[in-house]
Amino acid sequence: MANAIDHTHDPALRSWVESANDAATDFPIQNLPLCRYSPGDDPNLVLTGVLIGDRVFDLSGLRDARLLDDLPGISNQEQEDWVWWDFSWIVSCPAAARRALRARLSELFREDNRSLRDNPHLLNAAMRYQRDVTFAAPTAIANYTDFYASIHHASTVGAMFRPDNALLPNYKHVPIGYHGRASSIVPTGTAVKRPKGQQSPPDGEVGAGPTFGPCKLLDYELEVGCIIAGDNAIGEPTPISHAQDRIAGLCLVNDWSARDVQKWEYQPLGPFLAKNFATTVSSCVVTREALEPFRIPAYARPQGDPRPLPYLFDEADQASGGFDITLEVLLQTASMAKAGTAPMTISRSNAFRDMYWTFAQMIAHHTSNGCNLAAGDLIASGTVSGLEPASRGCLLELTWDGPGKPRKPLQLPGGETRTFLADGDTVIFRAWCERPGFRRIGFGECRGTIVGA
Amino acid sequence: MANAIDHTHDPALRSWVESANDAATDFPIQNLPLCRYSPGDDPNLVLTGVLIGDRVFDLSGLRDARLLDDLPGISNQEQEDWVWWDFSWIVSCPAAARRALRARLSELFREDNRSLRDNPHLLNAAMRYQRDVTFAAPTAIANYTDFYASIHHASTVGAMFRPDNALLPNYKHVPIGYHGRASSIVPTGTAVKRPKGQQSPPDGEVGAGPTFGPCKLLDYELEVGCIIAGDNAIGEPTPISHAQDRIAGLCLVNDWSARDVQKWEYQPLGPFLAKNFATTVSSCVVTREALEPFRIPAYARPQGDPRPLPYLFDEADQASGGFDITLEVLLQTASMAKAGTAPMTISRSNAFRDMYWTFAQMIAHHTSNGCNLAAGDLIASGTVSGLEPASRGCLLELTWDGPGKPRKPLQLPGGETRTFLADGDTVIFRAWCERPGFRRIGFGECRGTIVGA
Repeated sequence: MANAIDHTHDPALRSWVESANDAATDFPIQNLPLCRYSPGDDPNLVLTGVLIGDRVFDLSGLRDARLLDDLPGISNQEQEDWVWWDFSWIVSCPAAARRALRARLSELFREDNRSLRDNPHLLNAAMRYQRDVTFAAPTAIANYTDFYASIHHASTVGAMFRPDNALLPNYKHVPIGYHGRASSIVPTGTAVKRPKGQQSPPDGEVGAGPTFGPCKLLDYELEVGCIIAGDNAIGEPTPISHAQDRIAGLCLVNDWSARDVQKWEYQPLGPFLAKNFATTVSSCVVTREALEPFRIPAYARPQGDPRPLPYLFDEADQASGGFDITLEVLLQTASMAKAGTAPMTISRSNAFRDMYWTFAQMIAHHTSNGCNLAAGDLIASGTVSGLEPASRGCLLELTWDGPGKPRKPLQLPGGETRTFLADGDTVIFRAWCERPGFRRIGFGECRGTIVGA
Repeated sequence: MANAIDHTHDPALRSWVESANDAATDFPIQNLPLCRYSPGDDPNLVLTGVLIGDRVFDLSGLRDARLLDDLPGISNQEQEDWVWWDFSWIVSCPAAARRALRARLSELFREDNRSLRDNPHLLNAAMRYQRDVTFAAPTAIANYTDFYASIHHASTVGAMFRPDNALLPNYKHVPIGYHGRASSIVPTGTAVKRPKGQQSPPDGEVGAGPTFGPCKLLDYELEVGCIIAGDNAIGEPTPISHAQDRIAGLCLVNDWSARDVQKWEYQPLGPFLAKNFATTVSSCVVTREALEPFRIPAYARPQGDPRPLPYLFDEADQASGGFDITLEVLLQTASMAKAGTAPMTISRSNAFRDMYWTFAQMIAHHTSNGCNLAAGDLIASGTVSGLEPASRGCLLELTWDGPGKPRKPLQLPGGETRTFLADGDTVIFRAWCERPGFRRIGFGECRGTIVGA
């Protein structure tokens, strides 16, 4: 099988990049996620790189040094035609070429491979420490779709907004999604300005109108993003049986949300200004190949739930369309940062196991009407929440204490509390996959700090 | 005043392009709309052109022939730096430069100007008949937002979907909008494949689930599009007082809609697959400068309606933020085409006068939370419908006969009827501005033919 786990996952593989051999690293030689970054002061120079340990290597530099020559599945002509070895090529090329690239990189970084290790001139040109570079969004994202695939999130939030009608009748049939804003996607580390917006008239005040001002209920949303591989022409759906091939890799997404704006604006056409002021993506894309050992069955629907319609049902996807990922949210206030207090974990879970729809189902659904998904597009899962309170993927849920009750603030070190985000708060998402017999595969960070309106 | 009506609108101006002097043309010398087109068989060669009469002229050709040199507001360095004189530059440059380009083109096409007219070599290279070229979308649209600014449309459609709650409480306060899909925007003339999609379970059938298949209620939506000029940085709103400067020009948009899919999927996050299978844009953008004589006051809100919040209110925009445009929809079935029967006008109106929000208000709202609009982005008005049945901008409204009543089909030549679109139907939008003392300014066509699923 083309996607079988291969030697690149051998946990005994060690790298000459020493930091990659640390058990705690996100980026062992078994991971090799891809990113885009600026190596120096010029933000217009954006390179495509591979992360290993605490380093990032420029793929075009490796290619110029002929270290990526003769990859199986890539013709010499194609090799010559690529002016830049860039991310848009990687997500456009056949999966076999991506696997060949991964295998070659795995070879180059092996402890016993001297071709790169013993080339100080090349290392000087093509290697940087991650701490010294500025990450860009992992792809130049042209189109961004946000789904709503966590049934626990949909149920909890539905209960708040529509107490009598929490989970709508379409939910278990339709992978609900909407188009997000591509222009305001920002890379990890970018400061996020508190948005202003319209807020609904105060409840019960007769004759009062809405107000406009800084958002009072600013929230994060913990999501997993899927970077699309390949293109389908307009009018040509990607069937569910081929939809997994459209997954180039996964990343982390913070779909920042202005809850007061959302509540007032979202009917009837959905969220708009409550979301499009900024969406933060993590520094890198963990490739589908790196995630192979962590595939799990799709969510087991409870007895009585409808079977997906045929265009959304595939045996192979049911068997291995899920991903076992631990997701963590950390919060550090300005006071905590000043006092040197480390960010505090406010949620951690494997709730991504419980997503009601797989990415393959989302892709099959998205294209089922002929809509064209382009290589490098981003589709996000929607807020990932589990049943347990500790697994809720946003403050809207985390600080909810049930219908009619006052919100229950988070208790933070130093006596601070939060129901929603304050200026100066930094939100950090981390994620990793673990499984006995395999090295830990990490996602890096998705980080943003709120600055005042 | 920078936007005052200038000599380029003089109705006595005649062009050496004889077809531009025809009173019925969409494209007199007073119009000069911009487009992108492929002059020959290579669809990858896309040029930016200006339309006059029945011709299109390649701007890069005129520039290479030095006919666009020394434009006021454009430095020689800028002139040298532009590798292509292209649409993205035109929408990015200062308004003064756009006006200078318009003035220069007006000069070049005047009856008495010989510089282009008497240059057969240049004419051969840079001039084509419109009938011989293939139009691309007028800009490479990176981001597309669809508003919902017609209160009559919102009221009528609301009454169908939510009989007890037709116009939602936010409507008169918030310019409601949502993000559309940029990747599936297609230029006029592109065939549109009937989408498949999920349709809701039949009413009253206990235990029945939704079905998946070709859309049964396929519709058009008549909209006016605004191409955005310039950029605002993320976090930096465009205030209402400057929002008119963000209008590069207007075009026609057909927001094709699968009504059965929409009804089932749209709660709670808005329309998605019901819309994103295709959106057709017209061949050209009529510039804001060409539309100056047709500016009118914003819609006069009925007594008792709320005054817009300050961030949406500007005296100058209230005085001249509307556009007086006649909009027309024509339908030609396959049988009509075969019989040589001309397309039939199924609606015609000036209902764009009655939009509840101006484009400046939509732009100010869109950026009010810091969302960045980029040069060349498309924002569409939403379906343009008036109070009169003949002014309704979609079949959903046109064939509605009131709550609880059966739909009233359109009667077409040859005895055919339509409640929604059939395969082979061609929908054509046309639009123009008229005013005594001025030449007619037309928008060209926005045309699409439905092909079977």
